[in-house]
Amino acid sequence: MQNIADYVRDTAAAAKQAFYQLAAATTAQKNTALLRLAELIEQHQTAILAANAEDMAQAAAKGLETALLERLKLTETTIAGMCEGLRQVAALPDPVGEMDEFRNRPNGLQIGKMRVPLGVIGIIYESRPNVTVDAAALCLKSGNACVLRGGSEAFNGNMAIAKLITQALRENGLPVDAVRLIENTSRESVGAMLQSPDLIDVIIPRGGKSLVARISAEAQVPVIKHLDGICHVYIDRAADTPKALDIAFNAKTSRYGTCNTIETLLIHEARAVEILPLLAEKYAEKAVELRGCVRTRNILPDIIAATEEDWDTEYLAPILAVKIVDSLTEAIAHINTHGSHHTDSIVTENYTDAQIFLRAVDSASVMVNASTRFADGFEYGLGAEIGISTDKIHVRGPVGLHGLTSQKWVVLGNGQIRT
Amino acid sequence: MQNIADYVRDTAAAAKQAFYQLAAATTAQKNTALLRLAELIEQHQTAILAANAEDMAQAAAKGLETALLERLKLTETTIAGMCEGLRQVAALPDPVGEMDEFRNRPNGLQIGKMRVPLGVIGIIYESRPNVTVDAAALCLKSGNACVLRGGSEAFNGNMAIAKLITQALRENGLPVDAVRLIENTSRESVGAMLQSPDLIDVIIPRGGKSLVARISAEAQVPVIKHLDGICHVYIDRAADTPKALDIAFNAKTSRYGTCNTIETLLIHEARAVEILPLLAEKYAEKAVELRGCVRTRNILPDIIAATEEDWDTEYLAPILAVKIVDSLTEAIAHINTHGSHHTDSIVTENYTDAQIFLRAVDSASVMVNASTRFADGFEYGLGAEIGISTDKIHVRGPVGLHGLTSQKWVVLGNGQIRT
Repeated sequence: MQNIADYVRDTAAAAKQAFYQLAAATTAQKNTALLRLAELIEQHQTAILAANAEDMAQAAAKGLETALLERLKLTETTIAGMCEGLRQVAALPDPVGEMDEFRNRPNGLQIGKMRVPLGVIGIIYESRPNVTVDAAALCLKSGNACVLRGGSEAFNGNMAIAKLITQALRENGLPVDAVRLIENTSRESVGAMLQSPDLIDVIIPRGGKSLVARISAEAQVPVIKHLDGICHVYIDRAADTPKALDIAFNAKTSRYGTCNTIETLLIHEARAVEILPLLAEKYAEKAVELRGCVRTRNILPDIIAATEEDWDTEYLAPILAVKIVDSLTEAIAHINTHGSHHTDSIVTENYTDAQIFLRAVDSASVMVNASTRFADGFEYGLGAEIGISTDKIHVRGPVGLHGLTSQKWVVLGNGQIRT
Repeated sequence: MQNIADYVRDTAAAAKQAFYQLAAATTAQKNTALLRLAELIEQHQTAILAANAEDMAQAAAKGLETALLERLKLTETTIAGMCEGLRQVAALPDPVGEMDEFRNRPNGLQIGKMRVPLGVIGIIYESRPNVTVDAAALCLKSGNACVLRGGSEAFNGNMAIAKLITQALRENGLPVDAVRLIENTSRESVGAMLQSPDLIDVIIPRGGKSLVARISAEAQVPVIKHLDGICHVYIDRAADTPKALDIAFNAKTSRYGTCNTIETLLIHEARAVEILPLLAEKYAEKAVELRGCVRTRNILPDIIAATEEDWDTEYLAPILAVKIVDSLTEAIAHINTHGSHHTDSIVTENYTDAQIFLRAVDSASVMVNASTRFADGFEYGLGAEIGISTDKIHVRGPVGLHGLTSQKWVVLGNGQIRT
């Protein structure tokens, strides 16, 4: 039997070759393959759900936490979402070869940029089997090959989907190695990917904090990382009450396991007495546990006291930390210190407060009067997303097609030399 | 005495604080400081040249190679170039706060992007004292703070320049810690920077292959790297002879120590008998040593034989490897295999050959009928450059102001929640 590192490197080397072949694929070929994949997934929905059910049963038996089980579970709705994502990606313009920013230089050179794929993208992910489809679609459309290393808990579902991807590629004359699932879910297979900068151009981890931390520390390959989502809603002094109630409620309760869900609510002291009791009532309907600062507990005496640790915690659960602040400045400082630079929203009717918040909050997405839950590729109009980058380098926030490409400079001359 | 790691971390921490203060600086303040610095450098030219002469004498005594001495040397011309660079950067639009790509979503959200600085940028460089000025200017203009770690061989010149930078910042009410030169040129000071992802947002190494390799391997901070420049001119079957002669000659001989100088000349076999003897005559005037493949030596029997190693070597010297190829395809394969993905140029009058070359050559800059020597920030109209990235991630080719920034998403709502 082949050792794991060799198997992973052989797979990545095959993907590299497929990447060069992909350069010759037309946009039509790529789109047809994506649409065919949507069709195949719909046709094989029963088999995919059965494979996922097997994964769910094993995960439950192993005692996986609720948030992880929620991420693992596929339903007819989530499968319909995958197929919708494929059709959206097929409908998006092909970014490869886009040329822009051409300018004439005084010496007659025309200098501009051409958009090009990154090469081979390694995706290392946990739980969510839909990543297999989203990643394959976005990489293929952007001319990249990919090596997918899913989690052991999602193995059966991933294998069922990967088989269909291979079929869609083959039927459309595309290299089947352009999307390769690593059929080994050991730690060693991740390690082998991280140590292969000659074969893999960038790694995108999708998963828990410890996975991402390990990958960042060990990778010899550039990493586009998504760390945790400690997101905030700040209810400003000038907030509109109905908007504040709707947004603070929605940003916490519409889904608990997602990274764009808020973990801390900040509220200006001038509005706390009015708004906090109304909000507490709404949260009680959903049994959200509130943990408050001292002043919050003066208003809501029945809630638990928040500790310093709460401000730095991603609960991924029906728990919300609540803090009263004296000013916009204090809110911004809290967010920049305790947040994860993911997504933060201010509720305000005041123009200047909104402008200050947008500029000063150092996060991938900054919002005014909108739920943080909108921070994703679908909602931003990118089609599916491959992750939400909390880095500043290369790409920030939801990573769609453009995040998976680079640009090269194109210089058109007629014999110019440098004097 | 404070230990080196603590000193470096204290310096970086001061830069981080200065970065937050810089957010409040106006564009006018930053520009005035840059123009003032140009003035100060002109006024203190004699002192800078004297400091550099001291560096040069020590470097020569240590037996530094010619290419490095060439990089170290300052002249009235290179100092005038620095000042011209400062004035160009001052004249460029301030990228910070630029908003674009705003689109209306069906739910009424307006979603777009705002350009923001990266934070604290660490520059680790060797030899060239002009990097001190270029880096400070580009970082300041783009709202970043920077920590500069120059080479020991350039210490006196760097100190002389850094003093003037501090003065220009102070005189214009900007935080003096926004540009900090590390006054310790030991290996440990580099190590301390590489291990400080909490204080430094990105590291840009400028220097030889071994420095960059060490930094890439050890850095816990994202790196924008510039590896070597193994650049090519390919003289196509359809090349215009005078353009071919001018470009091949200029791309090798206008300067030997620069990364955008070619190291290998490729020529289509159909044009070799006509063009190679003419070129050899021109190169002989400059005493460029030619190293040829077997077929090249059939035409130019007096030159040295090239070995496999020559195709992978950055000479930074008056040496040129020459290879005859059978086709455009072979030329492209050679460049993608042996080149450093920096800058490559085709000389051709054929439209289709030019198009294929531009798309298929996987380099940061691809050119038609132009000397590779144009690949730099000045010539591309970026003002000064901080390096030429051979990475694909974040920024590729000459790195100017935009390469030192990121974008965040801005979402403007009126109460939208996600259903």
